[in-house]
Amino acid sequence: MAVGLPEKPVLLSVNGVRLAACSAGLYRKERPDLALIACDSGAIASAVFTRNAFCAAPVRVARQHIRKSPIRYCVVNAGNANAGLGERGYDDSMAICRRLSQLAACPMEAILPFSTGVIGEPLPVDKICDALPRLLDALSENAWLEAARAMMTTDTVPKGISRQCRIGGRQITITGIAKGSGMINPDMATMLAFIATDADVDRTVLDHVLCRAIDRSFNRISVDGDTSTNDACTLIATGKSRAPRIDSAAGREVGEFYEALEEVCVSLAQAIVRDGEGATKFVTIDVRGGLSQTECRSIATAIAHSPLVKTALFASDPNWGRILAAVGRSGVTDLDVSKVAIAINGVGIVENGGRSPSYTESRGKEALNGEEITLRIDLNRGNESLLFWTCDLSLDYVRINAEYRT
Amino acid sequence: MAVGLPEKPVLLSVNGVRLAACSAGLYRKERPDLALIACDSGAIASAVFTRNAFCAAPVRVARQHIRKSPIRYCVVNAGNANAGLGERGYDDSMAICRRLSQLAACPMEAILPFSTGVIGEPLPVDKICDALPRLLDALSENAWLEAARAMMTTDTVPKGISRQCRIGGRQITITGIAKGSGMINPDMATMLAFIATDADVDRTVLDHVLCRAIDRSFNRISVDGDTSTNDACTLIATGKSRAPRIDSAAGREVGEFYEALEEVCVSLAQAIVRDGEGATKFVTIDVRGGLSQTECRSIATAIAHSPLVKTALFASDPNWGRILAAVGRSGVTDLDVSKVAIAINGVGIVENGGRSPSYTESRGKEALNGEEITLRIDLNRGNESLLFWTCDLSLDYVRINAEYRT
Repeated sequence: MAVGLPEKPVLLSVNGVRLAACSAGLYRKERPDLALIACDSGAIASAVFTRNAFCAAPVRVARQHIRKSPIRYCVVNAGNANAGLGERGYDDSMAICRRLSQLAACPMEAILPFSTGVIGEPLPVDKICDALPRLLDALSENAWLEAARAMMTTDTVPKGISRQCRIGGRQITITGIAKGSGMINPDMATMLAFIATDADVDRTVLDHVLCRAIDRSFNRISVDGDTSTNDACTLIATGKSRAPRIDSAAGREVGEFYEALEEVCVSLAQAIVRDGEGATKFVTIDVRGGLSQTECRSIATAIAHSPLVKTALFASDPNWGRILAAVGRSGVTDLDVSKVAIAINGVGIVENGGRSPSYTESRGKEALNGEEITLRIDLNRGNESLLFWTCDLSLDYVRINAEYRT
Repeated sequence: MAVGLPEKPVLLSVNGVRLAACSAGLYRKERPDLALIACDSGAIASAVFTRNAFCAAPVRVARQHIRKSPIRYCVVNAGNANAGLGERGYDDSMAICRRLSQLAACPMEAILPFSTGVIGEPLPVDKICDALPRLLDALSENAWLEAARAMMTTDTVPKGISRQCRIGGRQITITGIAKGSGMINPDMATMLAFIATDADVDRTVLDHVLCRAIDRSFNRISVDGDTSTNDACTLIATGKSRAPRIDSAAGREVGEFYEALEEVCVSLAQAIVRDGEGATKFVTIDVRGGLSQTECRSIATAIAHSPLVKTALFASDPNWGRILAAVGRSGVTDLDVSKVAIAINGVGIVENGGRSPSYTESRGKEALNGEEITLRIDLNRGNESLLFWTCDLSLDYVRINAEYRT
């Protein structure tokens, strides 16, 4: 059902990063469910985690480890979130790090664990540990797609993208993969994403560009307004490209690297929405003319979280009153509704707070026919604007989530 | 599909209030769609309206009129919200008031208009005006149920309740009717409700008890998190009961009247949730042990607005991880997750932030089997508690809202 996504994205290898995936038997049906991402020594990493107070055990462990040590391995399982299990969950994530550190002869702190899947079931630690030697043997620069597949839960396609740019005349590559389809609401990174580059990036710059890119990508999407316990986005820089170092003195080079990184993050974030549970429409919410980013965001999220707007989009029904009602309840202070204009895919539906004189139901229906919908809301009271991405709410969303565990 | 509601609630007449309903042809299929509520002179009224910035035209008119004059008539149509139409909508609501004021020989300001239905379609003013004489002729003390039926949109049953209590040894009656099934999210009164009593109530007391009762009833329900443009709750006191006047000096009598009124409001609010669009479960969220009402409310609304929790409830799936994730993302400051306990219909599922040792999947399934579910969340850090009511998210919710206008 993914809207406008390829079945198999073409992903470029990143010098200094190798990957492997296998089936560790975490699902009843055999499928890839465990991935390993290995970085050569010298790589640095930055990561952003969920703000959910009930964060999962692997998030606790990864947060501690990334502070203490350069990164060598990310180990990622699907099928089980290892969340909601108290100290037992923490011990289980640590046990996996311990086993991998023995096999790979590296410090435990160089390993970041990640889990995604059902909350509240004990993690099958033995199955995961048993599969680690196979994964270590299989590591390859060309297994990005396999790793993306092994992270999928209700995702229908593996998600990834590569971008290249030139730094000091030399080409660098950024490749990212992500999983996420439900429990998607922006608050830091609402899913799992792994991005790697062979650029040589200063640590402070790496943290800074990742935070900024996440704010403009993963923090601007919503499938269902639910923030997961396991979200994490990790950016690895191996420095193997031979391009000059990117640090705060690098000026324009930082800008070019940032732009390529933002493109990767936005593309991955959009891919998560395009593959949102049950999604049949990919919706861009384009809020303009606001007094602040905050109020643009309030408008965007009120629309993106409205089940009534989302079911109307599913039905290709130009029920614009629901969009108007969502704008009205967004909590924006002193909103002058008589200035508000709304358009769907360029067709003006609301002008001066009421129905556009030029609007007809048939033009509205036509505007909603495709799979790609842009809702433009113009508040006409300031110069701030913001883009936000969401999907429709379909019968399949309910089916998928009513049947997820059965 | 309404959960635990009677097809025909038994409603007591209120001395000084007469009602009538008819079909004015506002729906393609003939059905009751216009109601008139008339009060004898001497009645006073208090009303609370939606906080949605895009409030409907009748809300604008009713807000102005109730400030200026004692109330004589409420005129209520279903099928058309008269919202999102700019000045034309305002003029249309005024035209109905004008016509009724001529027919009934009363000031325009004594008339409150109310509309519910589709947003953005011009109101069929002529059809409504043509039906007014018939309604005036048909007014009766015993037509509460008929009026409740004429306000229904996606409601499956008419909603109403009567309560009696004694004031100074004399019996007074409170009868209320409400409509509402979708676009339900607490922010003032998220639906239409009309409550009348024959008690003689001081104006200041009337305003005060209505606000308080709404805060503890209609403002504690959610079907889909969308706040309507047309919400209004009106309380009329006719003073015809011969019971002594209730004013701020009345002490215990105020308390008794308030308790009966709160019972009516809570019952109507719960009825809206029980008849929530597509609802198959009625869910009470019982938050305890909070530091403040605000944090209890944040927890309750995070759960009540979570599509993942609501689809799991629809499936009778004890996927408690989704409840835990909603608690975690509710934004409560410094929440110590290791103290949180969660129970479903008395079955402990989470203790000390993790799965209860005594919990089994089969006990969880059993707890979710019925139509009436209580989710108890204990934060174990304070003495505040709050009740909130919601329903599940079913396939029918999406069907109803994807097909509403077609």
